[in-house]
Amino acid sequence: MGDEIPPPAHQLASVSISSDATSSTTVQKARFSDRVRIRSILGRPDGGAGLAGQKVRISGWVKTGREQGKGSFAFLEVNDGSCPANLQVMVDASVSDLSRLIATGTCVTVDGCLKIPPEGKGTKQKVELSVVEVIDVGAVDTATYPIPKTKLTLERLREFPHLRSRTNSISAIARIRHALAIATHTFFDEEGFLYIQTPIITTSDCEGAGEMFQVTTLINHTEKLERDLIENPPPTEADVEAARAIVKARGEAVAQLKAAKASKEEITASVAELNEAKVSLARTEERSRLKPGLPKVDGKIDYSQDFFGRQAFLTVSGQLQVETYACGLSDVYTFGPTFRAENSHTSRHLAEFWMVEPELAFADLEDDMNCAEAYVRYMCKWLLEKRYDDMELMAKNFDKGCIDRLKLVASTPFGRLTYTKAIELLEEAVAKGKKFENPVEWGIDLASEHERYLTEVVFQKPLIVYNYPKGIKAFYMRLNDDGKTVAAMDVLVPKVGELIGGSQREERIDVIMERIEEMGLPVEPYEWYLDLRRYGTAKHSGFGLGFERMVLFATGMDNIRDVIPFPRYPGRADL
Amino acid sequence: MGDEIPPPAHQLASVSISSDATSSTTVQKARFSDRVRIRSILGRPDGGAGLAGQKVRISGWVKTGREQGKGSFAFLEVNDGSCPANLQVMVDASVSDLSRLIATGTCVTVDGCLKIPPEGKGTKQKVELSVVEVIDVGAVDTATYPIPKTKLTLERLREFPHLRSRTNSISAIARIRHALAIATHTFFDEEGFLYIQTPIITTSDCEGAGEMFQVTTLINHTEKLERDLIENPPPTEADVEAARAIVKARGEAVAQLKAAKASKEEITASVAELNEAKVSLARTEERSRLKPGLPKVDGKIDYSQDFFGRQAFLTVSGQLQVETYACGLSDVYTFGPTFRAENSHTSRHLAEFWMVEPELAFADLEDDMNCAEAYVRYMCKWLLEKRYDDMELMAKNFDKGCIDRLKLVASTPFGRLTYTKAIELLEEAVAKGKKFENPVEWGIDLASEHERYLTEVVFQKPLIVYNYPKGIKAFYMRLNDDGKTVAAMDVLVPKVGELIGGSQREERIDVIMERIEEMGLPVEPYEWYLDLRRYGTAKHSGFGLGFERMVLFATGMDNIRDVIPFPRYPGRADL
Repeated sequence: MGDEIPPPAHQLASVSISSDATSSTTVQKARFSDRVRIRSILGRPDGGAGLAGQKVRISGWVKTGREQGKGSFAFLEVNDGSCPANLQVMVDASVSDLSRLIATGTCVTVDGCLKIPPEGKGTKQKVELSVVEVIDVGAVDTATYPIPKTKLTLERLREFPHLRSRTNSISAIARIRHALAIATHTFFDEEGFLYIQTPIITTSDCEGAGEMFQVTTLINHTEKLERDLIENPPPTEADVEAARAIVKARGEAVAQLKAAKASKEEITASVAELNEAKVSLARTEERSRLKPGLPKVDGKIDYSQDFFGRQAFLTVSGQLQVETYACGLSDVYTFGPTFRAENSHTSRHLAEFWMVEPELAFADLEDDMNCAEAYVRYMCKWLLEKRYDDMELMAKNFDKGCIDRLKLVASTPFGRLTYTKAIELLEEAVAKGKKFENPVEWGIDLASEHERYLTEVVFQKPLIVYNYPKGIKAFYMRLNDDGKTVAAMDVLVPKVGELIGGSQREERIDVIMERIEEMGLPVEPYEWYLDLRRYGTAKHSGFGLGFERMVLFATGMDNIRDVIPFPRYPGRADL
Repeated sequence: MGDEIPPPAHQLASVSISSDATSSTTVQKARFSDRVRIRSILGRPDGGAGLAGQKVRISGWVKTGREQGKGSFAFLEVNDGSCPANLQVMVDASVSDLSRLIATGTCVTVDGCLKIPPEGKGTKQKVELSVVEVIDVGAVDTATYPIPKTKLTLERLREFPHLRSRTNSISAIARIRHALAIATHTFFDEEGFLYIQTPIITTSDCEGAGEMFQVTTLINHTEKLERDLIENPPPTEADVEAARAIVKARGEAVAQLKAAKASKEEITASVAELNEAKVSLARTEERSRLKPGLPKVDGKIDYSQDFFGRQAFLTVSGQLQVETYACGLSDVYTFGPTFRAENSHTSRHLAEFWMVEPELAFADLEDDMNCAEAYVRYMCKWLLEKRYDDMELMAKNFDKGCIDRLKLVASTPFGRLTYTKAIELLEEAVAKGKKFENPVEWGIDLASEHERYLTEVVFQKPLIVYNYPKGIKAFYMRLNDDGKTVAAMDVLVPKVGELIGGSQREERIDVIMERIEEMGLPVEPYEWYLDLRRYGTAKHSGFGLGFERMVLFATGMDNIRDVIPFPRYPGRADL
């Protein structure tokens, strides 16, 4: 490309494409490319039939290709990731060498004409593309391509995180995940909440929510030091003594010159030599103290030498920090990555996952529950409206019930009951013969089996359980008047169990101080958090939604490693 | 709260509030609270005058309060963070003790009646609130409150990251930042891009973009081990020898029993004792090898014992990873935190900052430039439309030109010129007497002074400079046909200089391999990246926008530490 920029559609010559058309008989080009997205064709209510006769350029990857008519033409199923459906592309042998096009994984850009397929071909396609010219081909080495036409297991696909987005399942999940993220931002923006990006690197511990990863530059510095000590061994005690002797000798020399009333020049020169020797001694002493290993003071690691001057971690939750903004901007939320360094190998845990954490000032627990319910239902409606085709794919390939589940949640008010009532219901079930692995009694933390029994069997819809025993909940949750329970709430949904955990926060400085003491926590790390109660304290509430759990709930997938693009867990952090 | 949930508005009794009204004479309540946001009153085109006579509940923090009429009433300026304007609130001494309300920082919830202020009072308020009842007060200890009525410097405010969102400046910046984030998601969603959350913890290095933070659990494990070794000193060589002797003795005992044809029971018992001794020996040997310090193998740290089984870092860019999704889903973007462990104390650098990185398949450099320009202009229009009141505050308090700058960018096509042309222009300027600190010649990386001269002086509008010398750019940028330049582009804007950097990516496997070799990089770490070129390679392009730079550009602020809620830099990671 030179100084002159060529017109964008210069290569399209005979193919006319309108980029701003929205009428039903004109196809819409992608704004920052010369191609048309396949979704713009097949995603129309008429399946693209109304576009027959239009000339378009499309690009994408060949899902399957087959030569037919004794090699006189080929059919390609092409997908560009914009929707689950493939566009059927017909190429005549007179247009291109067919063999270079048909391998699964080949990338093609072609110009062609949209046509209604001949009847009786048994195809469901409302439209197909008849190729006029092959513009570009990205070949594939079929011998080594790891994502062949035959279906790989989800587990096997995890070995290829850089290529698995080309599969039907992972690409549908990516589009659903996208839709849920956009629904999240849209919901909170519409409701007047401000998106606050809480810190990833933190020196606070959100009430021991879990094991934390350490963030450091100390190891790097230590390794550099150790390499340096091997290349340039540190001075010995004898070296230090020698340097000291020089300082002493030069000091005496200066003294002698002064005593002898030597010239100013002579004394100045001598003092300069002395100072040089002193600098050299200081350097020698400093280097003689260097030791391999992490820097230590009094037997403990010296974090004053770390990047932030203190020990730093990856956040386990943005809640405490986002509360500081709620107590100034009223309604806020954070949506970001959170981390747990737990050696957990289950299908429900990741070392890196995303959380949505709204915080509402001037809101009590009921407002909090209303917000949580409205948010979850909004996301379900959004998916049904915007990504029904992807949901159909999930229903077909993974979980027949996933669309009905979304519809149920979108249309049904959530059940609400206290923890005490929940325990009663579980005890009734046990009395009637229901077996749980974990015993049921007032005061326990509800296990996943209990939560799923309540939401899937008893209520058969999403539930909010609230007012939990204070003994099993965090210090910052507001103590209820009964003195036994706190204003906490969990949203339980079929398939996943706990989707959301939240609470009204304790805004009374005396009560929260008592709770901190009661739980044996140190006060000092929370001083800034307590300041929110000392200075213009406000009633406020909030909750956290595990974003991957929401994706699991929506898609019906079983393993959390398949609903995040690049899963991190013990032993694995590919790419 | 008991099992029964009280009706949400139970405390409001005589105050009638409609929550779904949008008409101009009815005030709209916040959906998840019993209060009305101050923005819903003062943010109306009529400044709230049309709501006179309405009864509302509002909540917020007192900015200033003063008793008047010899203590017979008080005026409070109340702000709830929903907009920069304060609501003027009038409280009669008959309604409440005034002294508890007037301190700056006090949080109040009051019911009252909106009224048109009497004329001639010199107030700009179109409406004020006459309080009927004080519902709630969060007091403030004025003696220690760090955010007094008198204005603190921005630098001083950084000492109180948990309270500074209560100031006019930081809250306006937070609302502008929110608007830019929502504009970002809205723009890309509307244009058909999918939001892909790239990993924060990574084992890849984006082409040495900068110093990386290490993420580890090794130090924690090492400290635990060292504590354990002090409490339970490891076995000495003598202990190991003793354990070996026991094994030997028991082995001999077994042999003797067998030789003596002892009973099966006797032999079995003896063998069991031997095995026990062997287990004990193995344990003793293992523990005897334990050493304080980080685990090492062949003098190097043994990362197989770290959480991910290898050395892991915080990401410096999501680009390479998001490219893998572009090569399957076509148009994608990532918007997340990125990290640099650089010892940089400038007003332009953070250790943790946010980046927006779109990646477009089937797009060349020109498409990329079109996308970058459309995105930046979209954000500027969005701000003018949605947060004009906050922009006015910034213009008044910090940067008179910030609104004009947004208008300029929103309305003016960006200039575009090659790097070669840019160098010519700079050389012309030098010939005419312009002095730069950094010499100008073809091949240099443009310094900030050069970039700002071009955009602020020569063109006086945003610029895109493209086709840079390959020697100063990354290996993945597409080599132009001249063999000297690559298809890279930077967007330069007044005030900030470089806002965006991007490129068309090298999609040709042979060319990219050559470039990696040419730059002396190892191939192995990039094998997965090269796979994208081996299997169905596609023309693609992308760019990265430093989100905080965009906030600086929009707000006119000078220090990057003031445009992110919780700034991280060397020596500081508060909260």
